Amino acid sequence: MPRVFIYDTTLRDGSQAEGVSFTVNDKVKIARKLDESGIDYVEGGWPGSNPKDRDFFALMKKDPLKHARLAAFSSTRRKGMVAADDPHYRDLIAAATPVVCIFGKTWDLHVMDVLRTTLEDNLEIIRDSVAFLKKKKKEVVYDAEHFFDGYKSNPEYALLTLKAAAGAGADILVLCDTNGGSLPEEIAGIITEVRENIAAPLGIHTHNDMDLAVANALAAVDAGCVQVQGTFNGFGERCGNADLSTLIAILSSKLDCKTIPEGRLKALRDTAYYISEVANLPIADNHPFIGHSAFAHKAGVHIDAILKNSKAYEHIDPALFGNHRRFITSELAGKMPFVMKAEQMSLQIDKKSEKAKEMLKALQQKELEGYQFEGADASFELFMKKFLKTYKPFFKLQGFRVHTEKTADGQSRAEATLHIEVNHECRFSAADSVGPVEALDQALRNALAPFYPTLKGMRLTDYKVRVLDTKEGTAAKVRVLIESQDEHDAWTTVGVHENIIEASWEALVDSIEYKLLKDSKK
Amino acid sequence: MPRVFIYDTTLRDGSQAEGVSFTVNDKVKIARKLDESGIDYVEGGWPGSNPKDRDFFALMKKDPLKHARLAAFSSTRRKGMVAADDPHYRDLIAAATPVVCIFGKTWDLHVMDVLRTTLEDNLEIIRDSVAFLKKKKKEVVYDAEHFFDGYKSNPEYALLTLKAAAGAGADILVLCDTNGGSLPEEIAGIITEVRENIAAPLGIHTHNDMDLAVANALAAVDAGCVQVQGTFNGFGERCGNADLSTLIAILSSKLDCKTIPEGRLKALRDTAYYISEVANLPIADNHPFIGHSAFAHKAGVHIDAILKNSKAYEHIDPALFGNHRRFITSELAGKMPFVMKAEQMSLQIDKKSEKAKEMLKALQQKELEGYQFEGADASFELFMKKFLKTYKPFFKLQGFRVHTEKTADGQSRAEATLHIEVNHECRFSAADSVGPVEALDQALRNALAPFYPTLKGMRLTDYKVRVLDTKEGTAAKVRVLIESQDEHDAWTTVGVHENIIEASWEALVDSIEYKLLKDSKK
Repeated sequence: MPRVFIYDTTLRDGSQAEGVSFTVNDKVKIARKLDESGIDYVEGGWPGSNPKDRDFFALMKKDPLKHARLAAFSSTRRKGMVAADDPHYRDLIAAATPVVCIFGKTWDLHVMDVLRTTLEDNLEIIRDSVAFLKKKKKEVVYDAEHFFDGYKSNPEYALLTLKAAAGAGADILVLCDTNGGSLPEEIAGIITEVRENIAAPLGIHTHNDMDLAVANALAAVDAGCVQVQGTFNGFGERCGNADLSTLIAILSSKLDCKTIPEGRLKALRDTAYYISEVANLPIADNHPFIGHSAFAHKAGVHIDAILKNSKAYEHIDPALFGNHRRFITSELAGKMPFVMKAEQMSLQIDKKSEKAKEMLKALQQKELEGYQFEGADASFELFMKKFLKTYKPFFKLQGFRVHTEKTADGQSRAEATLHIEVNHECRFSAADSVGPVEALDQALRNALAPFYPTLKGMRLTDYKVRVLDTKEGTAAKVRVLIESQDEHDAWTTVGVHENIIEASWEALVDSIEYKLLKDSKK
Repeated sequence: MPRVFIYDTTLRDGSQAEGVSFTVNDKVKIARKLDESGIDYVEGGWPGSNPKDRDFFALMKKDPLKHARLAAFSSTRRKGMVAADDPHYRDLIAAATPVVCIFGKTWDLHVMDVLRTTLEDNLEIIRDSVAFLKKKKKEVVYDAEHFFDGYKSNPEYALLTLKAAAGAGADILVLCDTNGGSLPEEIAGIITEVRENIAAPLGIHTHNDMDLAVANALAAVDAGCVQVQGTFNGFGERCGNADLSTLIAILSSKLDCKTIPEGRLKALRDTAYYISEVANLPIADNHPFIGHSAFAHKAGVHIDAILKNSKAYEHIDPALFGNHRRFITSELAGKMPFVMKAEQMSLQIDKKSEKAKEMLKALQQKELEGYQFEGADASFELFMKKFLKTYKPFFKLQGFRVHTEKTADGQSRAEATLHIEVNHECRFSAADSVGPVEALDQALRNALAPFYPTLKGMRLTDYKVRVLDTKEGTAAKVRVLIESQDEHDAWTTVGVHENIIEASWEALVDSIEYKLLKDSKK
């Protein structure tokens, strides 16, 4: 059972994806989730390239990861100076991570046209950079950029760059198909030749420009690579990086490799969805292993055959990865996901009970409507408590109105009015603001403040919207996620509706109810 | 230069994708587009399985395809009768296509558990079905369902099924990885063994359950298969089928195979978008070769290197497939991205000019306000044209009002009214809808429709919202991204404001203006 180390670069290479823009807080949340998932390395960013990454590493220093090793990324040092004098290297050391990953030039074309130095100077740059970092007691991952293009152009020189890194003490040499233009047989053939010349452990880093990132990584592992670099959900520049959830699933379940610790495979789907929610980039329904449709059967002959023998049209058991079989005409999801979540909230549900069956049905109904509780535990807890009738509402809405206007002079404004009932008292409240959701939020808080003074200590920290059925454009259902926080916790709530104001209202109300519920337990 | 025949099953296997539902008219449109694209076979459907497919073949009979050969799909004949008596076979012959494709059972498990007959009877079913269709002068494509699973379970029997089909005259035997659970080395190994036993030409049909459909098809071609079955955009049940645009691109440009006629490669992107538009399923931005981001560069070091030598970060020329390079404009990039973009729009800007400096300043100001043009090329083009004063607005807003209400019974609704000026004419328009953004969109389209009829051909496909300053919660600025599409292109626009309705309005207006600008160039 060969061990393959999983190196995640969602926070660095993944953030190069068009449309991805992580806040510092997003990065910290993803790093913690990756840590829980059981992968081996988390590459956090490029210290010195921007203040966001500097702040991220400062926060991680205070509260380090528990399982994964944190890596900081950089290039080899600048030409014309020694590594010790390169200001980027000062930032790299200041990040105080156990691991550093630096990329260096392999391809003679890049050395001459991009780096604009001599082939020999590039070797010296690699040696000096690695040696400096080893002196600082770092585990050094050396990413050989454009390795395969470089090897095809000038194999002798490509090997010299690897020997320079290995000779200076690099712990692992990672061969990168940076442009994503190599085929699996090329990858396998070249790695076999490299292994005849290089004794150091090898890793692989692939891109998906030909839809071959996963196949190329597998070919590399087959040829002897022991580390796989990739990103969750395949996020990355252009067509993305090798998708780690797919690779972990194949390596663990089809190739009998040891990747993440046993028992963590079941959380693969949850990790992928969590990262997707934070990045606000949806996972395609047809995503292998973890997608909503990955084990969904539509063809009548398939459904018929599956019912006779599940092996007939499923290559593997979906439950292994936390997914489940679906029949598109009739929703038939398993009970495990919510029983597991309930346990996490200390709500005991016997999964064989009538109650559990009913709850599953109610949950499936919510999911059918577009609710997704993966990223919204607070709403899920409220949903379960309401279902179990252990929940007593703090207030009741009679109705609201929101008015938004843009005038000829280009100014826009919003007003909200609402009626609520608290402890059998009716309250009318109004607020104006620049936007409709904030006006609603303000009006609700104004009405509740006399009854629940602790609400002052809570604020909304993030607000995300996603369209559910993209076919319908603005007429489609939207899902709103609201993140809130007080001085003790942060929590996320969800609302779904065709009307964005109504969906926001739902998430807003859940957020406030969760806060009040939390405080009432004290 | 080996010839690889391309067999498209978008209209049959592709229609099994969750969310795909073609009308008869959709099917005819797609068949014609596929015919133009230069592929060899178009599988149109399963006559007899539903009236839609019967009508489709009736229409095609009246006006046949010009280049591609049309295929009708079916299974082997029912057990317990002869092919000539099977009513499905009457429908199959009535479809009057030059080609028929029938699938038969390879896997002993399927023969016994699903078909519920003896292994010998299944061989007789295959022989009889193929022989009947050959007598009717059809070109017969025999799809060996679950071939690889069957071969792994019982190789002798799997080969017997192929020999039965070949012996009865099948023109080609297509090996199917129906569950998508095979690895490239398994595919290659098994095909090599099959070729030692079977002389008939072989084809390959793969599914993407492990993100390996393309890699598996390539491994099969390498092992000697001469026909590749797949779908456009990878549509298909569960995780989809092998993606034909990716396969055609790789086979033609990387493996020196002859697939579609020379000169048609450039239309690959157009074909894919057209089918996406008819299917109402968007193409992922990061789709290999043809996607919006497939040749988009974001990292500063990449942009810098590309400008020095385009080979540095691009494995192939995007223009080969009708795509183009993009530089993602972001805060980290200097003047180059927008100067390059301007060039692509045939706007000449000298990067050393005073104008360029002013434009950079204006752009930085927009970015400071929260605009991000990296995902919003259309808004960026409008921004540049407005800045350079080469833009003449299509209409002018006088003002809008949007009213959203939720009543005590839980119902919510929205109404929008607006005044615009087009060609010095004032127009008032109103619309109601379930949500405020759709109400606004509708009101605007109602007002513009008499002046600009091409707007009917455009629709909004995605709507995303992100809060910019997460510290401010709902009072923060939000950025709205709207994706739109017509039958030729997809484009994205951006709006930023503290008021989500106003931000949506901005993106909405940009989207419509971009469409009108594009059409006015024709």
